[in-house]
Amino acid sequence: LKKIVIVGVGLIGGSFALALRADTSQQFHIVGIDRDRDALDAAEQRRVIDARGDFASALPGADLVLIAVPVRQLPTTFAAIAPHLALHDSATTLVMDVGSTKCDVLAAATTHLGEHASRFVAAHPIAGRETSGVAAAEAGLFAGKNVILAPSDANTPACVTEAASWWKACGANPIVMSAAAHDAVFAAVSHLPHLLAFALVDELAARDNARQLFSFAASGFRDFTRIAGSSPEMWRDIALNNRDALLAELDAYAAKVAALRQQVASADAEGLEALMRRARTARAKWLAGDLDSFNSNGNTEAL
Amino acid sequence: LKKIVIVGVGLIGGSFALALRADTSQQFHIVGIDRDRDALDAAEQRRVIDARGDFASALPGADLVLIAVPVRQLPTTFAAIAPHLALHDSATTLVMDVGSTKCDVLAAATTHLGEHASRFVAAHPIAGRETSGVAAAEAGLFAGKNVILAPSDANTPACVTEAASWWKACGANPIVMSAAAHDAVFAAVSHLPHLLAFALVDELAARDNARQLFSFAASGFRDFTRIAGSSPEMWRDIALNNRDALLAELDAYAAKVAALRQQVASADAEGLEALMRRARTARAKWLAGDLDSFNSNGNTEAL
Repeated sequence: LKKIVIVGVGLIGGSFALALRADTSQQFHIVGIDRDRDALDAAEQRRVIDARGDFASALPGADLVLIAVPVRQLPTTFAAIAPHLALHDSATTLVMDVGSTKCDVLAAATTHLGEHASRFVAAHPIAGRETSGVAAAEAGLFAGKNVILAPSDANTPACVTEAASWWKACGANPIVMSAAAHDAVFAAVSHLPHLLAFALVDELAARDNARQLFSFAASGFRDFTRIAGSSPEMWRDIALNNRDALLAELDAYAAKVAALRQQVASADAEGLEALMRRARTARAKWLAGDLDSFNSNGNTEAL
Repeated sequence: LKKIVIVGVGLIGGSFALALRADTSQQFHIVGIDRDRDALDAAEQRRVIDARGDFASALPGADLVLIAVPVRQLPTTFAAIAPHLALHDSATTLVMDVGSTKCDVLAAATTHLGEHASRFVAAHPIAGRETSGVAAAEAGLFAGKNVILAPSDANTPACVTEAASWWKACGANPIVMSAAAHDAVFAAVSHLPHLLAFALVDELAARDNARQLFSFAASGFRDFTRIAGSSPEMWRDIALNNRDALLAELDAYAAKVAALRQQVASADAEGLEALMRRARTARAKWLAGDLDSFNSNGNTEAL
């Protein structure tokens, strides 16, 4: 019987618990910790958790602590759990997070987890929903999805393998990358597009003729700006927690758009069509799962 | 029995013909003109058109000529039809286009249609499909959709009303705007987002680690870049034909992104969250059809 503590019983924490329960080859005792009593009530009713607890009573003897709180609450959460881990055979308890940024999380773990930092493995499951909360949790949320593990220098290979095994038990596909590579990749393919979508909607909504503009916006605009419907608090934090990588992406994109502007200004029909054709072809290959012709530098290791 | 000539028997031209046929209160003789013999064959087989023809034989006595060719072919099409309109009681034949840009089309009509330019009404139906060609044409394509009419100084009010009546017969909602206002609005809500999406995909696809980047791109990236799957020829032409308005939008957006970059660089959490919250709220209101609180300058007149 393995003991698991879920700190933050929401969509991700709850789905992790349900996914483990679906693995009938093992048995788990799952304790939930949350500041939100309603979330704990709902989690108990759905049998997502077996019991609720607090750090002092729940952490001793735990095999795994999964911290699934908003990223900005990670430093204080690390600081809160550290004393209880240190007092009770800390070498046996593995700790993971689920945040969208990784360099900042590793730094916070080093600062606040003390000697237990070597047993913390930073993780980012690439799975989400428009909905949130434990009511939306489901056992299959991670099935077939990638989970990035970003080991620190203090982690042993055995510790990373152990972290990966938990995600495999959830049906996910663990992949090891450095925290820096993770943050650079997601700055480019996720954090930048989110900021660009927020910026376009805010720019047009502030215009004198905003009503006219939006009355003619159609399905292309709707899809381009879908991610501007995301949580302001969460994306504010991601932008600030991954600031350096995001600034590099904002600069690269600004340079790209400036070059495109020059092509329009100089009526470079050939150059414009070539750019659009390259983009359409690349996107079609990506959608077809055909990445063989793409440049393949970059360190990624599947576990 | 009204005589209609459709120049360019594709998705838009074919759907216009089918929509009129669905109006059982009137009878039409519809002649198709196209360089593509297969398109004419398909149009005849589907009874989209009654006959095929050429300019010299088809134009005399026509009540309406609908030119539904790619925008870059409009000047030569105007020049080709002008002699035949001028020879045969030109005052009775109304001419319309269906292009995505309007200032350039009005200028081409003035240059190439000669004395018949007063009977040309520039039109832009806000309806499309991912598919193209007459095989995709359908009678309901314009039902409930807006159609922008951008009158020239040479058009009489009666001429604009006549143009609107054709689109009403197709089930569409005609709206009058100046060509300049049309081009400014669509530069902002359509042409700019298309270029931004093409630019992002091309930027990332050219990277050394493109395979790694695209292997972690998820549904947010997919939707943000959906319009980068659009036709390179069509969007090259739109970008160049609406160059001035598009350059103004590119500059405004670059300034907005530069300001956003400054907020990230200075860790302005409050400013970032406020921007994201405004954007999310505006987009949610737009999706709900609730534009009452939006700034309402801008000239738009429903017919």
